[in-house]
Amino acid sequence: MTVQTTQVQVGIVGGGPAGLMTALLLKRQGISAVVVETRSQETIRTTHRAGILEDATVEMLTQADIGSRVHSHGHEHEGTVLSFDGERRRIDFQQLVGRSVWLYPQNEVFHDLATAWQAEGGEIHWEVSEVSVEGLQTSSPQISFTDSEGAAQQIQAELIVGADGSRSMCRKLIPEEIRTDHFTAYPYAWFGILVEAPPTHPELIYANSEDGFALISQRSETVQRMYFQCDPDTDPADWSDEAIFERIQSVLGGEDSIQLQRGPIIEKTVLPFRSYVCEPLNWARLVLAGDAGHTVPPTGAKGLNLAFCDVRALIPQITAFFADASRDSAALDEYSRTALDRVWRAQSFSYWATTLLHRQPEENPFSQRRRRGEFEALTGTEAGRTYFADAYTGWKA
Amino acid sequence: MTVQTTQVQVGIVGGGPAGLMTALLLKRQGISAVVVETRSQETIRTTHRAGILEDATVEMLTQADIGSRVHSHGHEHEGTVLSFDGERRRIDFQQLVGRSVWLYPQNEVFHDLATAWQAEGGEIHWEVSEVSVEGLQTSSPQISFTDSEGAAQQIQAELIVGADGSRSMCRKLIPEEIRTDHFTAYPYAWFGILVEAPPTHPELIYANSEDGFALISQRSETVQRMYFQCDPDTDPADWSDEAIFERIQSVLGGEDSIQLQRGPIIEKTVLPFRSYVCEPLNWARLVLAGDAGHTVPPTGAKGLNLAFCDVRALIPQITAFFADASRDSAALDEYSRTALDRVWRAQSFSYWATTLLHRQPEENPFSQRRRRGEFEALTGTEAGRTYFADAYTGWKA
Repeated sequence: MTVQTTQVQVGIVGGGPAGLMTALLLKRQGISAVVVETRSQETIRTTHRAGILEDATVEMLTQADIGSRVHSHGHEHEGTVLSFDGERRRIDFQQLVGRSVWLYPQNEVFHDLATAWQAEGGEIHWEVSEVSVEGLQTSSPQISFTDSEGAAQQIQAELIVGADGSRSMCRKLIPEEIRTDHFTAYPYAWFGILVEAPPTHPELIYANSEDGFALISQRSETVQRMYFQCDPDTDPADWSDEAIFERIQSVLGGEDSIQLQRGPIIEKTVLPFRSYVCEPLNWARLVLAGDAGHTVPPTGAKGLNLAFCDVRALIPQITAFFADASRDSAALDEYSRTALDRVWRAQSFSYWATTLLHRQPEENPFSQRRRRGEFEALTGTEAGRTYFADAYTGWKA
Repeated sequence: MTVQTTQVQVGIVGGGPAGLMTALLLKRQGISAVVVETRSQETIRTTHRAGILEDATVEMLTQADIGSRVHSHGHEHEGTVLSFDGERRRIDFQQLVGRSVWLYPQNEVFHDLATAWQAEGGEIHWEVSEVSVEGLQTSSPQISFTDSEGAAQQIQAELIVGADGSRSMCRKLIPEEIRTDHFTAYPYAWFGILVEAPPTHPELIYANSEDGFALISQRSETVQRMYFQCDPDTDPADWSDEAIFERIQSVLGGEDSIQLQRGPIIEKTVLPFRSYVCEPLNWARLVLAGDAGHTVPPTGAKGLNLAFCDVRALIPQITAFFADASRDSAALDEYSRTALDRVWRAQSFSYWATTLLHRQPEENPFSQRRRRGEFEALTGTEAGRTYFADAYTGWKA
């Protein structure tokens, strides 16, 4: 059987935002890259994921000339609302830290990146199968795969970027004696819905009551995203539309509060929560970026933004790696260190926001009132609001 | 048997700082008070407790003309140090929030208050026994007790203040159907020592490593206070002086770090941790103040300061209670609400600081690194340092 071979500097496993942004920015540094992805472009384009971009993420898209649709179709959010037992407090990001976040769905970010990569003649193989990576301890590691037409292909590179998402195959190539899998599960999940309705509120509302957590989010003028806390083993079919709206309305504060804009529910999904960090993020001729290296619970809206932080840390180190004829791995070690500093801050924030805003299984009167006390300290003081705003919008430092 | 009877407006059970400060400030509002206390003055004077005063606490002492020894014998601390795995970060309270805290032991505060109360002719009964409170639902509740000479006495008052500490008898008088006991235990304790040595460092160091927590504190030029995390069932006799110093030095960062000033250890105690809040803090003709109403773990240095916050909230409401001929309890309800807002903030801060800085029993690589990530977010950003400084020095709002 003939194997079609491609020579390239960087082979990238995964065509999501992390992989595509890496490919694009490398190309602009004059470093060649090829991307392989098991899913189809259409599948990724239509999979609903997170939707909040830090301004540093928008800045990266803008600087890379991929930001025009964010600006024309996205919505700048200058603040957000935290609500406890129906009592709402706004956190004014602009006033507190001079930054905003942007509501712009991840699948649109993907679309913009894929469009740009292909428009610039970037090579990407969609719907590949039987992907394997070999030779990581040699100077020419390879990605072998079967392309969408059934042909065997191989990419011969000098460096592999594993950007293959939370079920990453690449990270398992880091030997177990070197890799630490930092993992924690959470005893709850999010029940997520897409609703055909106008926005209930112009900004996100993170709400908590005795019934647990709910999030009022937006997507477009006609479709909204909402979530509420549920057991991880909940079957979405067990919840009627009416029961779903009643629950979210109740967490929001019942009939005295903002009233939900209701409409047909066009998607129901249960999203399990986990925190995961792979340490280190590099080994031999492999580096990990995005969800392949770390997963955060969605509460802090950090997932996609962390992927972009990884890429921001990675590009100069890959450049340094290729600038040095000996291909010294020190630059890749430095990438892992820098990226992980940020990852652990974000994990910490996501964990903290999650435990603050969710009803815990061992909840007793003390823990409920303590969480309420923390809500007061956080939203009732300038220092607390600033701490939250600084973290949520993405630390500048 | 003859019962000696005293008529007074306010009967106070407990002659610790909360009870004495309440008595003094009431007297200055023209409201008469009598205090009973089961311990001797000498016992309280020589019992070592917390030693960090918020500036609002110092301000209260100063305004009440009891502050001169704080200023002459206490030490102003303009900041504190947080240390993780030997990496120290200073939190500059003055620069961040324009406030300091004061190192001045609680037993000295007690001494100053007891001296002032007695100098002003205030009535206090030390070493009483068989204390009971009756008639709380009448307009003349009474405190009955046996005085230090064995004589039966009764104080007839219009209002009772229960300031009888963490094992409060008074709070149990609030009927169970009205009272919620918010409680949580912690799976560790502090091993506390008093050392005859000069200070190791001019400010407190809150340290954490894989061995858990340690606190380097001060007391005087010649005696220091230090703590380290231990199991709640630790027997102090099982730890040699050498082993104690080795553990604290190790948490501080070993031989590359600040070296402990060592000396003879003159006291070893194991302090269990608990969080407790009684809600509400009033019922009928009873109000609770200080530890009688709430206990915090010592990590946030909030215990004594919260007692003073209670008194600050209580005095105007007792004044309002007596200004209204109908003795409407609305003022006492308002005291409970106001004081509890502060109590829950402080509980939340104490809980958070405790879990951040202590090794948890279920600690895994994720939780260790997450705590480290939180340390970085907290100490590595101006917003984080300000949030900590604002809480530690006592929120102004």
